[in-house]
This record gives sequence, C-alpha cells and structure tokens, in this order.
Amino acid sequence: MVEPFDAVDLIRTKRDGGALSTAQIGWLVDAYTRGYVADEQMSAMTMAIFLNGMLPAEIKDLTLAMVASGERLDFSGLSKRTTDKHSTGGVGDKITLPLAPLVASFGVAVPQLSGRGLGHTGGTLDKLESIPGWRARLSAQEFMSQLDEVGAVICAAGATLAPADSKLYALRDITGTVEAIPLIASSIMSKKIAEGTAALVLDVKHGSGAFLQDPARSRELAEVMVRLGNDAGVATRAVLTNMQVPLGFAIGNANEVRESVEVLDGGGPADVVELTVALAREMLDLAGMPNVDVEGALKNGKAMDVWRAMIRAQGGDPDAALPVAKEASVVTADRDGVLVKQEALPFGIAAWRLGAGRARKEDPVQHAAGIDLHAKPGDTVVKGQPLFTLSADEPARFARALEALDGAWAIGDPGDPIDDGGPLIAGRVG
Amino acid sequence: MVEPFDAVDLIRTKRDGGALSTAQIGWLVDAYTRGYVADEQMSAMTMAIFLNGMLPAEIKDLTLAMVASGERLDFSGLSKRTTDKHSTGGVGDKITLPLAPLVASFGVAVPQLSGRGLGHTGGTLDKLESIPGWRARLSAQEFMSQLDEVGAVICAAGATLAPADSKLYALRDITGTVEAIPLIASSIMSKKIAEGTAALVLDVKHGSGAFLQDPARSRELAEVMVRLGNDAGVATRAVLTNMQVPLGFAIGNANEVRESVEVLDGGGPADVVELTVALAREMLDLAGMPNVDVEGALKNGKAMDVWRAMIRAQGGDPDAALPVAKEASVVTADRDGVLVKQEALPFGIAAWRLGAGRARKEDPVQHAAGIDLHAKPGDTVVKGQPLFTLSADEPARFARALEALDGAWAIGDPGDPIDDGGPLIAGRVG
Repeated sequence: MVEPFDAVDLIRTKRDGGALSTAQIGWLVDAYTRGYVADEQMSAMTMAIFLNGMLPAEIKDLTLAMVASGERLDFSGLSKRTTDKHSTGGVGDKITLPLAPLVASFGVAVPQLSGRGLGHTGGTLDKLESIPGWRARLSAQEFMSQLDEVGAVICAAGATLAPADSKLYALRDITGTVEAIPLIASSIMSKKIAEGTAALVLDVKHGSGAFLQDPARSRELAEVMVRLGNDAGVATRAVLTNMQVPLGFAIGNANEVRESVEVLDGGGPADVVELTVALAREMLDLAGMPNVDVEGALKNGKAMDVWRAMIRAQGGDPDAALPVAKEASVVTADRDGVLVKQEALPFGIAAWRLGAGRARKEDPVQHAAGIDLHAKPGDTVVKGQPLFTLSADEPARFARALEALDGAWAIGDPGDPIDDGGPLIAGRVG
Repeated sequence: MVEPFDAVDLIRTKRDGGALSTAQIGWLVDAYTRGYVADEQMSAMTMAIFLNGMLPAEIKDLTLAMVASGERLDFSGLSKRTTDKHSTGGVGDKITLPLAPLVASFGVAVPQLSGRGLGHTGGTLDKLESIPGWRARLSAQEFMSQLDEVGAVICAAGATLAPADSKLYALRDITGTVEAIPLIASSIMSKKIAEGTAALVLDVKHGSGAFLQDPARSRELAEVMVRLGNDAGVATRAVLTNMQVPLGFAIGNANEVRESVEVLDGGGPADVVELTVALAREMLDLAGMPNVDVEGALKNGKAMDVWRAMIRAQGGDPDAALPVAKEASVVTADRDGVLVKQEALPFGIAAWRLGAGRARKEDPVQHAAGIDLHAKPGDTVVKGQPLFTLSADEPARFARALEALDGAWAIGDPGDPIDDGGPLIAGRVG
C-alpha cells in the first residue's frame, strides 16, 4: 500500500501552527490504529496539538476518524428511545448508579457503557462490582435484550468501539498530554458517538476534583463536545457542575453503592439527589418527556424496581450485604467552628491510596476501601466530633492517605467564607 | 532502584513553559538511555522543548548529561595540541577533506570524528569511502597512533560517545523535532565535548542548503554552541557561512574527493579555498599558531603530504583512480545571459536522488553519483553552454533529479541581482 501522507510532514504542520485537512486526519488516525504511524510520532503530534490547538473542523475530523476506527452500535431496531449520560469524572461521583434506573423507569432505554477508574477518579464498573455476583461484561445479545426488557444497562464498553481512542488515551496518559480540550473532547465524543445513542447529556465538571479545574475552560470543553455531538446526529446537551467538594458523603466503591441505593429509596444526600434529578430531567427532555415527575419516581419505588432488575439481570444480588473494610480510622474536629473547606482532589487521592482506586490498569480495587464524610462545608462542628472515617483492608495504608489530606479540610469561624465552589449546578450548554 | 523523578511530571513542566533542574535533566537523559523513559515520552518532551524552548542553563545541563551518557575521550597524553572542526552541514561541503591535513601539516593533531550523510547533506565518511581501500573504522589504538604520527585522522565516531544523543537524534528525525536550537546545539556539542578536543571551530551555515536557513537563527545557534563549548573547557569559536549556493563545483562523493585533492594541490574552486583557509586560520589560532602561512602549505605540498599519509594510514591508495559513473546527463543554458541563481537545497536533493546520498541509514551510497557544476552564480553564459552534468549508475534516476532542479537555477540579464546569499563568510562568534 502506498501511504498518501508522511507522518513527519503532518507533525511539522501542526508544530508550526497549521491546520490538518480531513484527509490528513483520517489517514493519521487510521495509520496509527494499524501501527504504521508509531507511538513516538503520535505523542509528538499530541504535544503539538496540546500546545498549538486545533480548529473546530479539525476536532470534528479527529472525532469522526476515531469513530470510524471501529464498530458503531445501532439501536434503531429498539422500540424505545435511547439516551445516555457522560460525566468528565469527579470524586464521589456515583450519579450514574441512581440515574440510569431512574431515567429507564420512564420507559427510555439507557445504554450506559462505562469505564474503570484510573488515578483519583473512581470507575462506575468498580463500584458496581462490589455487589456480589454482578458482572460488567455482557454479550451483544444480553446487552440488547436487557435494554429492551429492563431499560437500563451499565456495562463495560467493548474493545471494538473507537479503538483509536483507546490507543491514543493510553499514550496521552504517559506523555503528559491529557488535559487538552481537542483531545479530551474527541476522546469522549468518539466513544459516545460510536455507542450509537440518540441523545446524550454531558456532566462537565470544574473545580478541585475535575479534569479541568478552571470553569471557563470547562465551559469551552462543554461547548466543543455539544457541537461535536449535534453535528454527528446525537442530540447533545451539557450541564456544568461544580466539583470543588466531593459529591455526597461516600467516596469509594461499596459505600458509593450504599449511598446510591439510599437515593433510589427516596433519601440520600441533597447534592447527589439534586444532580441526579437535574441530569434525569435533561435526559428525559431530550427523549421527548419534558414534564414527568422525576422526584416521584425516586419516592414511589419505580426507580428502585428498575435498579433491582438491572442488578439481577447482570448476575448481582441487590439484597446481598456489601463488603465492609477490616480497618477504620476516624478523623475528628480539632476545634469548635464551621467546616469551611473539603477539597475534592485530595479526598479523591486519599481514597485511591486507601485502595479504592488503582495506580495501574492491571491493579485490583479493594471494594470496601474508601472514605465516609460526616460533615460537609458550611456545617457547624464541635471539637472531637468525627469529620470523616477512612476505611481500608490494610492499616498500613492510613498514613499515606492522611498525608494526602493534610490541608485538604479546614475549620473556621461562623461567617468565614466557605470554599465550596458556589452552586452545584453552574450552568448548561445546548 | 527508586526513580527520583516521574517522566510525566517533567514533560508537564516543560509543556507548561517551566524550566527543568540540573537533577531533572540528568535523570531524564540517563533514564532515557537505559530505556526507563520510553521513546513516546521523550518525543512528547522534545516537542515541548521545540515549542517552549530551553533556558541557557537547561541547554548546558542537557549537553553535559548527554556527554555523561557515554565515554569521554582523553588526548591529554598526546604530545600535540588537538583542534577540531564541525560544520552544521551543507551541499558540496567537502571542507573537512583538505582542512584536516592542512591544519595537521603545522604539527597540530586533528581528531576528526565524522558521520555519514542522511538526506540531502553529504557525509564525510561516504566521500572518503570512494577512495579504493580506505576504511572509516579504526581501533582506539590505531586512532591514537595515527594522530601521533600523521596528525590528521578522519574516521567514524564509536557508539560509546554520547549514546543518548544518538538515540535522541534518531527519534527527532522521525518525530518532526529536528530544527530546534536547544536540541541541535546540545546534540552537536555533546558529541564534540565527548570527543575530548581542546579546541573547536564551528562552521555554522545559513541559506538554502543549511539546517537553519535564517541567518539570525543560525547566529543564535552559533552563540549557544560557542558558550556550551567554552563552558565545558573546549576553546570554541564559530564562523558564520553562507550556504545559499553549493560549495565548489562538485556535489557527490568521488567528485568531491577530486575537488579536495585539487585544493591540496594548490588549485581548486575559489570558494572552497577561501573557506578552507579561513577555518584553518581559526583552528591554528586556537592552537596557539596565529601567524602561520596557511596558503603556503597548500601551495608547497605540505598539506598534500599529510593527506597522502592520512589516506594510506587508513588503508587507502591516494593514487588510485576514483570511480566514474556509468551514465551522464548534461543540462545546458537555454539562453544567453548571466547565471543569477543556483539554489543549494534542490541541488543537494538532486544529488541525493542520483544515488550520492541515502534515504535510510542502512542504504548504500553510489560513490560515483552526483552533480558537477560548470558555472556559478554571476558567471556569463551563452545559449547551449553546459551548466551542470548529472552522473548516475542508473539512468532511471535522472528524471527525479531533474524534477528537484526545476526552478533551482535561472539565467538573467547583465545587471540583474544575483541570488548568491552575499559573501561566503558572513561573520564569526567567539
């Protein structure tokens, strides 16, 4: 085969601030997927993209080239409308767990292909795997029939969807080119477009625990992704949310499942309920149901019924006891006052170090490890009161987790400013 | 071994415009040499260096770390002073061939470790290998005794000198990160410092056939390299020369040896003689001989005597006939007038396509292939007069060589501006 382009020419073009054509980007992604363009060439290219940016047309070309690198799912045979949600990731972000059954309880199909955690952000599949018997891998047949019968599926994405993205993401992770808007947007949207959903709601986070901490850059990312989705025929919207403080009281795996079940049972932390309901409204609106009683479905058990059916359909026992860690360490307030700070990133890192997350892809996760918060910013606390509990199977892990939490929380006086990043829902795009 | 740094952290620092410390650069080069830092990480780093630059202290640290990655030669046991020359590379640049014996004829040792050509610039070793019997590889023992007895050695650099540079250079070549001053300067100077010379004259070229075409950037490169050399204890100077037009009349291998022998015989093209003499004066000045009769040594046969001894010491026969190409193609003037343009880069590319150079490291070179010029810019020409002759072993090569030469030369009217880039020697640094 005669190659129509030369990788070095394309790298030089981007290095010198030029734009790549549709044909050049299509060739680059294809040649990278089949191994003709080497990892070292692609990493030079991604660094050049990181530093010199991409035009909207280039980001679109990159996204569609990554979609074209693999299979594209098709739900057009399904009797229900499909709608999906994607979060850019945060600390204590278990929203997918109550959200998918909640939306499905209105007769919409929610094909939620999810990932595992890497670094300080947790993975939805890791959380669900703390339920005895539950399995993440489904055959295409199982997936379609569960979608038809139960309505909600949360499972692992197959390797056949956007393989170029999987390869490029692994490369970016080790070459310091993760946090670039063109690369983040094309990575997320290529997977979502390949998944074949008709509608998509993006939860784009900013603040301490987010991928992009700056709200303005986070909004820019949301705008780019919404345009990419709509251009590709996926009705797409984004909600801009604040990840300055962990979501809810639970950070980990089993404890996040517990908290999700509380929400499905009509209770749960106010912030988790608020975000679940807001995202459900957006998803249902895109599915043509703008005026349904979302809160009602959490109160009247309909969402819980779908949750139980969804867990059972994937081999899990919704009534089984969840694992509990062998060791716990409680941190208490060192003075009376008001909790003014509880920074998401160090709490995420601490939970990760306790065993809730993994450092390398092949590492196992300890399902019972994590952190339970007992107070949130703005709460009045008294000296000696428990602020949070660390849980781990190995007590040796506490020291490094506590190290990460040094300076991550603070108690001030009544009237002191609260570092909570402002309202949970900061805006929307699309 | 516990690694003191993380490659991704270092890449991010440079990506975000920060500076790397001496310890970080030392670790990076060492870890890359031993394979702990991967090629794809180093290529992201070199692209970040390309786009964000390096401070003088970082360039120095990078150079010394590459020196430290291998062996460092030591000529302190030699009875003579050592002095060396390096050219950034050009078209028709055979200066090393007459220069090394010329300087050695004054009792100075010239340990000239040279490379092979890649792309449009020729390699000194490729040129000398057109002499029957001559060999580029010498043992350390042969090298030292030839330096002591003959004074001049032109041979291949061993793999033990600055291996980090060799590895990095090969990577830069395929990742579009060749033309960055910090990377060019540290690459050249690490090899030269490792070679252990006491003095060094750099021939830094600008214009069509040069690495960096812009004279201002070329001067900047010279200034950076002169500072690096002097800081490392090598008395270093640079001559800034113009590579807009090929040097001399011969571009190739055997024909460049022929032209070099003409210079050693007291004749040869004016520009080749001018540059050879200028560089010899600088080298001899650095060796403590500012007032010797350089031109005399070309006229009286002393330089030729050293040339003959040098070729013989490396197995070559200085009297043997040089190879002649099987096929020739002559290009003639299409009108009367003045030759106003003869652009170095396309002539270099044409010679390369004729077989004088190699596309890949493992390709052989055709020693008789190349171009002989019959006129130089400023010369009056008449219609039908031969302008240059292409030589190749395979006639099929002529078409692509002529393609490269399309627009590379032009005949104008008397009084038209001559595109020769100005004086051959444009300045000096140090």
